[in-house]
Amino acid sequence: MRIVDLINKKKIGQALTREEIDFFVQGYVKGEIPDYQISALYMAIYFQGMNDEEIAHLTMAYVNSGEVIDLSGITGVKVDKHSTGGVGDKISLIVIPLVASLGIPVAKMSGRGLGHTGGTIDKLESIQGFKTDLSTEDFIKNVNEYGMSIVGQTANLTPADKLTYALRDVTGTVDSIPLIASSIMSKKIASGADAIVLDVKVGSGAFMKSLEEATKLAECMVQIGKSLNKKTIAVISDMNQPLGHEVGNANEIKEVISVLKGKGAEDETTVALTIATYMAIASGKYQDFDSTYAKLEEVISSGQAIAKFKELISIQGGDPQIVDEPTKLPQAKFQIEILSEKSGYISEMDAEKIGLVAMVLGAGRKKKEDLIDHAAGVTLLKKVGDYVKVDEPLCILQTNHANLKNVEIDLLKAYTFQDHKPKQMKYIYKVIE
Amino acid sequence: MRIVDLINKKKIGQALTREEIDFFVQGYVKGEIPDYQISALYMAIYFQGMNDEEIAHLTMAYVNSGEVIDLSGITGVKVDKHSTGGVGDKISLIVIPLVASLGIPVAKMSGRGLGHTGGTIDKLESIQGFKTDLSTEDFIKNVNEYGMSIVGQTANLTPADKLTYALRDVTGTVDSIPLIASSIMSKKIASGADAIVLDVKVGSGAFMKSLEEATKLAECMVQIGKSLNKKTIAVISDMNQPLGHEVGNANEIKEVISVLKGKGAEDETTVALTIATYMAIASGKYQDFDSTYAKLEEVISSGQAIAKFKELISIQGGDPQIVDEPTKLPQAKFQIEILSEKSGYISEMDAEKIGLVAMVLGAGRKKKEDLIDHAAGVTLLKKVGDYVKVDEPLCILQTNHANLKNVEIDLLKAYTFQDHKPKQMKYIYKVIE
Repeated sequence: MRIVDLINKKKIGQALTREEIDFFVQGYVKGEIPDYQISALYMAIYFQGMNDEEIAHLTMAYVNSGEVIDLSGITGVKVDKHSTGGVGDKISLIVIPLVASLGIPVAKMSGRGLGHTGGTIDKLESIQGFKTDLSTEDFIKNVNEYGMSIVGQTANLTPADKLTYALRDVTGTVDSIPLIASSIMSKKIASGADAIVLDVKVGSGAFMKSLEEATKLAECMVQIGKSLNKKTIAVISDMNQPLGHEVGNANEIKEVISVLKGKGAEDETTVALTIATYMAIASGKYQDFDSTYAKLEEVISSGQAIAKFKELISIQGGDPQIVDEPTKLPQAKFQIEILSEKSGYISEMDAEKIGLVAMVLGAGRKKKEDLIDHAAGVTLLKKVGDYVKVDEPLCILQTNHANLKNVEIDLLKAYTFQDHKPKQMKYIYKVIE
Repeated sequence: MRIVDLINKKKIGQALTREEIDFFVQGYVKGEIPDYQISALYMAIYFQGMNDEEIAHLTMAYVNSGEVIDLSGITGVKVDKHSTGGVGDKISLIVIPLVASLGIPVAKMSGRGLGHTGGTIDKLESIQGFKTDLSTEDFIKNVNEYGMSIVGQTANLTPADKLTYALRDVTGTVDSIPLIASSIMSKKIASGADAIVLDVKVGSGAFMKSLEEATKLAECMVQIGKSLNKKTIAVISDMNQPLGHEVGNANEIKEVISVLKGKGAEDETTVALTIATYMAIASGKYQDFDSTYAKLEEVISSGQAIAKFKELISIQGGDPQIVDEPTKLPQAKFQIEILSEKSGYISEMDAEKIGLVAMVLGAGRKKKEDLIDHAAGVTLLKKVGDYVKVDEPLCILQTNHANLKNVEIDLLKAYTFQDHKPKQMKYIYKVIE
């Protein structure tokens, strides 16, 4: 088999076989096939696409390129959850105690990652003592004992995806639906998931800017799940403004607590309950959406949800006191109130701009080596649809850096105002299963 | 400027500016831009094409990446000629003395190259003593004194084309019209041509299999010539069977002599006279096709053409006696007559298969390092349209290798027969200027 023949085959729009896909994925990981041939092949895939079979084969080729976590020691259907990413997205932390409260095992593996804020693991590390570097044994033991656990990814999962992603990033082949879908799904499958709920974000602050594109990606991933016999449900949710009121690390932990206490923002709560409901349905233990959603509302109102979160913190060595005294979370030296320069209804909030400000404040990383300041973040006092007067505070920035003048200007640029009240935004657009 | 932005720009079908094209060509030659980004960019170009301006800029970026031969020391318009390549194509050697006989300076730079037979330079080296490694000074002096000269390419012409061609070859981006056209035209322009006549081959033995594709390539190259102010004429000629009766190196020199003596095969003679006529027209010294063509026929019948070829051999140190005694050219040890296994009219001759046999006999090179056997080749006794009886000889193979049994079988596979006489093939399909 010659890689140049595979490139030519894809170039003229023909489908690659499982053997051909295994050949180039394995050859690339082994260093036998050079970058320049894979980048040409991926550009051909960008233009010619892949059919359902090819995408499933590519997903499994990525999975088989590295370790696969064996969660068979956990009783029950293991449902994983993935978000395509957005600003203020703390849904993972909310759904762990919620789903666990329903008696469904939650064995969550999360990452740190680059971006506006840290990843789920970074956010949890805002809590003093919280340990995420559990051995696989302890991880499984915790899930069997307490119904939930969360660890950082340490295993060598899907190295082929890591390598090809790094190459795609510098060769203009990131925005290919088959390549995005197989990348995401391979990581979930390698993490040992039996079923998967996907939170596909759409809007100005998301990678997918249009509902059409988001739908295509969601459908593609659900199809991969079908092909590989992993129950998969995709929820398309809004990311035209940051989710909830908090962006950061400690900031987001605070908001997780609010939601689990039943005092969360409406958008955050709705999306979290919807994702948790579909996780329950994907597990096979629950069937009906409305009654399951209602049950989760009860779990919150009864105090069970927040108790479960406290339990999670305790199990993993963290200080559960922060739940009742969130001021025990890291606090920034500087609190900067940003006052509105205009009056009117907020019609748009550019999530990406707000995320970039959070990063500048210290909440995120640009490079792997960068340190995260858990105390840094943004508290959004007003959101789309709210009326604001001149000099009324729009948000509060938390940072340990002095002299960050430009961030105020940058932040104000994220807001657009209008005279009349804008139409209520949707939180959930579509569910594909 | 970032190369990934240029890749993305081309990917969505936007045109690159001259600055952007210079940026990636220069960056690649300097080793600042890696192979994997260029291969992705070229695959995007394969799919999205390039407009006339982009193609002209790319051509000039290739030209400017290396040396440019200065032929201003030669009086008159220097017309170069290029063939897209075929089997038995010895037109360059025929047109040099023909065009020079019309008083138009011919300063020909030729290569060796890989393929079924050697390049023009290899063919000339069948003639004992023929020197092609002249200094640029002697080359120019010869053209001014005798009206013609031929040298091997020694200068560092269009290194960007060489580098990108090697990359295209292994990444499935050879068959892109803008990339082929700019590659060819850049070499001609860097060689110092004022005007260019292109022999675009079409058919089973050519790179361009259909007249439509050949026309696109021809139009693209003529457009480059227009954009860069170099008079360019493209002749689309047949390559559904080998050109003439001889394939090889010494073999082809023999046929050049026959054509120049007025005893050449009809196809070879017609194509050579057509190309020579258009070279005369491109020089600006001649205008009318028919009268120029007739004048060239006179040049042959009067003996002037063959005398001029003898002169060329003498000037460059070769033995002109071979013109009168072609047996003085290298002779192979073995002459193998291939007898027909069928009777009927030859309806097709697969030029590529015949070329491959010539290579196996020793006439060509697979790799740069391979040695060429000047004596090896194929003499085609019958061509498309000829009637052949069983056991009548189809061709004679010349080789110094003993025991090449398979070549006979391979060669017989190149022939297709039918009962009725096939329609007369065209030699020239189109002229684009």
